[in-house]
Amino acid sequence: MAVVNEKMEALGKVRSAIRDLFEYGLQRAKIVGAENVYDYSLGNPSIPAPDCVKDTMIELLEGDSVALHGYTSAAGADDVKEAVAASINERFNAGVTKNDIYMTCGAAASLTISLNALVCPGDEVVAVAPFFPEYRVFAQAAGAVFKVVKADTEKFQIDFDSFEETVGPNTKAVIINSPNNPSGAVLSRETIDRLCDALRKKEAEYGHQIFLLSDEPYRELVYDDIEVPYMINEYDDTLVCYSYSKSLSMPGERIGYIVVSNRMEGNTDVFAAVAGAGRALGFVCAPSMMQKVIAKNQGKTSDINAYRVNRDILYNALTGIGFEAVYPDGAFYLFVKSPEPDAKAFCEKAKKYDILMVPSDSFGVEGYVRLAYCVSKDKIERSIPAFEKLMAEYK
Amino acid sequence: MAVVNEKMEALGKVRSAIRDLFEYGLQRAKIVGAENVYDYSLGNPSIPAPDCVKDTMIELLEGDSVALHGYTSAAGADDVKEAVAASINERFNAGVTKNDIYMTCGAAASLTISLNALVCPGDEVVAVAPFFPEYRVFAQAAGAVFKVVKADTEKFQIDFDSFEETVGPNTKAVIINSPNNPSGAVLSRETIDRLCDALRKKEAEYGHQIFLLSDEPYRELVYDDIEVPYMINEYDDTLVCYSYSKSLSMPGERIGYIVVSNRMEGNTDVFAAVAGAGRALGFVCAPSMMQKVIAKNQGKTSDINAYRVNRDILYNALTGIGFEAVYPDGAFYLFVKSPEPDAKAFCEKAKKYDILMVPSDSFGVEGYVRLAYCVSKDKIERSIPAFEKLMAEYK
Repeated sequence: MAVVNEKMEALGKVRSAIRDLFEYGLQRAKIVGAENVYDYSLGNPSIPAPDCVKDTMIELLEGDSVALHGYTSAAGADDVKEAVAASINERFNAGVTKNDIYMTCGAAASLTISLNALVCPGDEVVAVAPFFPEYRVFAQAAGAVFKVVKADTEKFQIDFDSFEETVGPNTKAVIINSPNNPSGAVLSRETIDRLCDALRKKEAEYGHQIFLLSDEPYRELVYDDIEVPYMINEYDDTLVCYSYSKSLSMPGERIGYIVVSNRMEGNTDVFAAVAGAGRALGFVCAPSMMQKVIAKNQGKTSDINAYRVNRDILYNALTGIGFEAVYPDGAFYLFVKSPEPDAKAFCEKAKKYDILMVPSDSFGVEGYVRLAYCVSKDKIERSIPAFEKLMAEYK
Repeated sequence: MAVVNEKMEALGKVRSAIRDLFEYGLQRAKIVGAENVYDYSLGNPSIPAPDCVKDTMIELLEGDSVALHGYTSAAGADDVKEAVAASINERFNAGVTKNDIYMTCGAAASLTISLNALVCPGDEVVAVAPFFPEYRVFAQAAGAVFKVVKADTEKFQIDFDSFEETVGPNTKAVIINSPNNPSGAVLSRETIDRLCDALRKKEAEYGHQIFLLSDEPYRELVYDDIEVPYMINEYDDTLVCYSYSKSLSMPGERIGYIVVSNRMEGNTDVFAAVAGAGRALGFVCAPSMMQKVIAKNQGKTSDINAYRVNRDILYNALTGIGFEAVYPDGAFYLFVKSPEPDAKAFCEKAKKYDILMVPSDSFGVEGYVRLAYCVSKDKIERSIPAFEKLMAEYK
């Protein structure tokens, strides 16, 4: 008998490359000062939460403590789910009801709960590269075989040849993420239409549902007049996994939700499985005060324009120095081509200048690095000379 | 291929008996008014959080929003873990360091993370009846075979004959919970000594570690001068699962921790497995603001004396009417013997009088009902005539 579960031990020891860099950054900050670490590693928003968050919390704290801090129903408080549904319908006219909503402890919980609800032994879960590396961890921990659709490195849409090969009779779910972490790309209307057609064809061919998990923590973070289609309106077998971490700049607070589309066949069974998975994983209810905070601040966001400014400064500076990058439409990531084939080696070199970036390998594509530009504008500007020195090594 | 995971669907449909009653109570409250539902079903504290919680939150909200609401390290913020360790050592002289502490989203998360960290296929997890019913769900979802030590219905300590039979070569972990939900009993010094000796003997006999999970959300809720031994000091292979839900009256906020004893052989591997399990289950970090709140309020509790008063009113009234009950030393539960053998039938009869109680079957012992007396004193007093009418049916 092994002392502990070896898979869990390995996960705890290897750690996510991203969180590892974050911890490294914290250590470096103690040595050279936080202001001198150009930490582009983690999507930890530097823009404060909007004032309405603080105002709402102070207002709530004046009320009844027992109601404020008590358990809610496992799926979330009724009035909170009503507020969420109303906001979704106002924006997307999607016919969502409160009974379709399961409040969660953030996007990671939304994904693990959805995956544990859906996956049966032998099932496959498909992600489209590049993808958030924890998808692999979450899918495998739920008992799935994890498969990857190759990245379209032209425009970071979907490589449909690879999609056709990868999605098969054992595919239980496909995960998409638009705006995308790490590329910053938004899946276009054309891509979405083609994706949904392809999924419906596969469903008909294999005679069972293929669920679409739309992971949408960056939905509100788009910088120009770009459409981000609401997947509930596009494909019946959709579960939306949402988090307020980025839109309200409170990633540590762990608050989000799952929408199980009511247009899905067997939606009440799927919702029951979601509730069961939440229970089995130990999520009793989403944090109660934060449920009330988001209910009162639907449609609000932190100062997203600040990210737009950051994007343009960083993109223009880096491409000016000679780096190649995709111009991102959303999220707060710049996906930069590594000037040497080995992105890990490039990131190691960057550490000499206290630039922390995540190599793309763990995102399912080689030869790129991810820069999370949700840092201060000032820090971006001060980091440019460091990038110049770094690029000089390649000239 | 099944549409969804059937085990999760069943868990979501059957629901925990306790949460089911809670939802029923919410529905009844809409009909007859909340004040007329004598809901003893859920451990949802009615005593408000102490003022220090509100004061700390308002103070924190005046500070930097990014630091307040941002991600912390996965295991929790360093200064928070230091504060927790210092408080443990001050009270129990247990030699705990911040590196032994993993902050969690409450006691349920503490348990699911610990179980997923430890359990390998084929392992057994043992609980001592009566036990919190979700132990079974959590252990089975982690892949374990769940086994039960029969209840000692004399004093609700441990039936050591049953313990000897139940703990075997495949036992990976034993869960204890003192003060106990549902009996209110506290395991005595004598019981603890005997338990630890028995565990050490079993470890020697089988040649491997048997971990003790000490689930301690009720640690501070003891009403007389009763000792609750700190298990880290008693048995090397201990993990303490703690939550602030009850001590600070904020069960909805989901904040707690795991301590992996540093006296345990292989403790760093166990800690890594805990971190890996937290990651795999989708717990990114414990809610950040609540981490800071509890760090600043170590050793504080809500007005526990109110529960003592409730205990005495309810115990005296019910035994006065003719019910038999164990006089509880801790937690906020009264475990009452059902006046008919079928506790479920008794609970159904009680519903006629809008008294909601949980039958003991799901706690692993038959013929009792659990009353959570963490309700208002006023409600307890107003419920007595309803209990009198209920008892009249049995006379």
